[in-house]
Amino acid sequence: MSFSVTILGSSSALPTSERFPTAHLLNANERFFLIDCGEGTQIQLRKYRIRLGKLNHIFISHLHGDHIFGLFGLISSLKLIGREATLHIFGPDQIEELMLDHLKYFQNELSFEIAFHKFQHRHPATIYKDNNIEVTTIPLKHRIPTCGFLFREQPTPRNIKKDMVEKYKIPIREIVKIKGGKDFETGDGQTIPNSELTLPPFLTRSYAYCSDTAYSEEIIELVRNVDILYHETTFLQKDSDLAAETLHSTTRQAAEIALKAGVKKLLVGHFSSRYKSYDTFEKEAQEVFPETSAVNDGDVFSVSRVREKM
Amino acid sequence: MSFSVTILGSSSALPTSERFPTAHLLNANERFFLIDCGEGTQIQLRKYRIRLGKLNHIFISHLHGDHIFGLFGLISSLKLIGREATLHIFGPDQIEELMLDHLKYFQNELSFEIAFHKFQHRHPATIYKDNNIEVTTIPLKHRIPTCGFLFREQPTPRNIKKDMVEKYKIPIREIVKIKGGKDFETGDGQTIPNSELTLPPFLTRSYAYCSDTAYSEEIIELVRNVDILYHETTFLQKDSDLAAETLHSTTRQAAEIALKAGVKKLLVGHFSSRYKSYDTFEKEAQEVFPETSAVNDGDVFSVSRVREKM
Repeated sequence: MSFSVTILGSSSALPTSERFPTAHLLNANERFFLIDCGEGTQIQLRKYRIRLGKLNHIFISHLHGDHIFGLFGLISSLKLIGREATLHIFGPDQIEELMLDHLKYFQNELSFEIAFHKFQHRHPATIYKDNNIEVTTIPLKHRIPTCGFLFREQPTPRNIKKDMVEKYKIPIREIVKIKGGKDFETGDGQTIPNSELTLPPFLTRSYAYCSDTAYSEEIIELVRNVDILYHETTFLQKDSDLAAETLHSTTRQAAEIALKAGVKKLLVGHFSSRYKSYDTFEKEAQEVFPETSAVNDGDVFSVSRVREKM
Repeated sequence: MSFSVTILGSSSALPTSERFPTAHLLNANERFFLIDCGEGTQIQLRKYRIRLGKLNHIFISHLHGDHIFGLFGLISSLKLIGREATLHIFGPDQIEELMLDHLKYFQNELSFEIAFHKFQHRHPATIYKDNNIEVTTIPLKHRIPTCGFLFREQPTPRNIKKDMVEKYKIPIREIVKIKGGKDFETGDGQTIPNSELTLPPFLTRSYAYCSDTAYSEEIIELVRNVDILYHETTFLQKDSDLAAETLHSTTRQAAEIALKAGVKKLLVGHFSSRYKSYDTFEKEAQEVFPETSAVNDGDVFSVSRVREKM
């Protein structure tokens, strides 16, 4: 039951030989969610041995090329490998028109449907939910409509202990109630407290993805206490004027969001290719928020599955 | 004065972790010609340390995604690095409409002009010429209009020997004539034969690029005696039915074209990702045409600069 993020691309708009443009892959209990899809994403997926056929849901933060140019080749390859299942693409308003305009030149006979799920970018909204995970948009401040995404596991019930079912001969009809927190009364009038019968539920794990954005305190409440926050950090602190001008963030700004939101771990990426070394990104952010990692292509960050305290 | 081809992508439509989709770069005396531009071409260019700014001419064989999806990101990056010079794109008829339809979403304010040079695909034609090189189309047989390209150096004059100019006190007005092959008469009526005064011209070097195509004997005359022929070889011989069905070529078919055209060297690539190993491609082609190499991403094939025989 893994919950992990694989960094497929950690560069900003200009890729380097070491860093592809932005794409992340969330593995939430073996369901795979692709988040942004820069040029070469399908090549990175193959490199890191993630089967293209496992992708069903793609989330696009905004329609800048370095977050979307990999979609064309990926869709083309999905057709070539004979995909039949519907592909769900979540993105800003214009995404459907853009993709259809493009597909008319290349894929007039796709072997599968694409379902476009368009979202508004001004207010947070739940855009996806299944029995395991829920996805909410995080409005960001960029040059065009842009949203990040919060992926959070659904709460699970308490787990009943099997040996207790046998010991007290608990009938099936009582089990659901006990999982919901109820105590159990035995045939001879004895009350067994719920805490003896069950294990607490697992903590819900969460991943928040924020790229691209200027410093925006509106993000803080939306990512409060998440396990992992990825926040773009295109520029070092000394280039804060460039960050302001292009509506991107600096190391310190990302770290301040992480600090104020009380997240457990901060990832920074989307580095401008102007810098020769990336160590300073981590160092500058850690001065404000020690639990920071500057990401590299191929990095995998996992969240352990642990139960709530008794 | 190099004449070399760098393989940027050697896969067919489905890239692998080792092989990007098709793109080649011809360095003809430090002028760089990009031939096809599959997804990730700009990343490969950076990997192999070729400066994006050096590109002025891009030749697109046909409008299948694995030959063109890298154009979007490349153009976007050229804007980001502040390109101002016109970019020349040569391609089949629909290329301008396709690119403009695309650019309207991403690059409504390019910092440079794109000049589209559209070619017809039925008959060979010279589509580019400068003082060093000439490019001619090679009509191919594929599912959509497709042309390969023949790059051939322009013939150069004979080189006059400096010490002969001094020895015989040759006036400047005679030099052009001597370079053209004329003998020289000295003041005292002695005739110095041209062969004593000059070195023969350099042989014109050539590179022919044929991807994608079914076996087509019409190619043979167009690539006769070239130094390097790249001919796609999507399938091994045992899959000749698949080659016929998809209008691609097998190992033996590529090798037969090379043999019949008397080329000096054959490169095969555009391998289907269905194969686990690529050694057999080289082996099968070499049975027909020994001077064959199966290409890998990053390979560089050079042609030496040598003079014609005296």
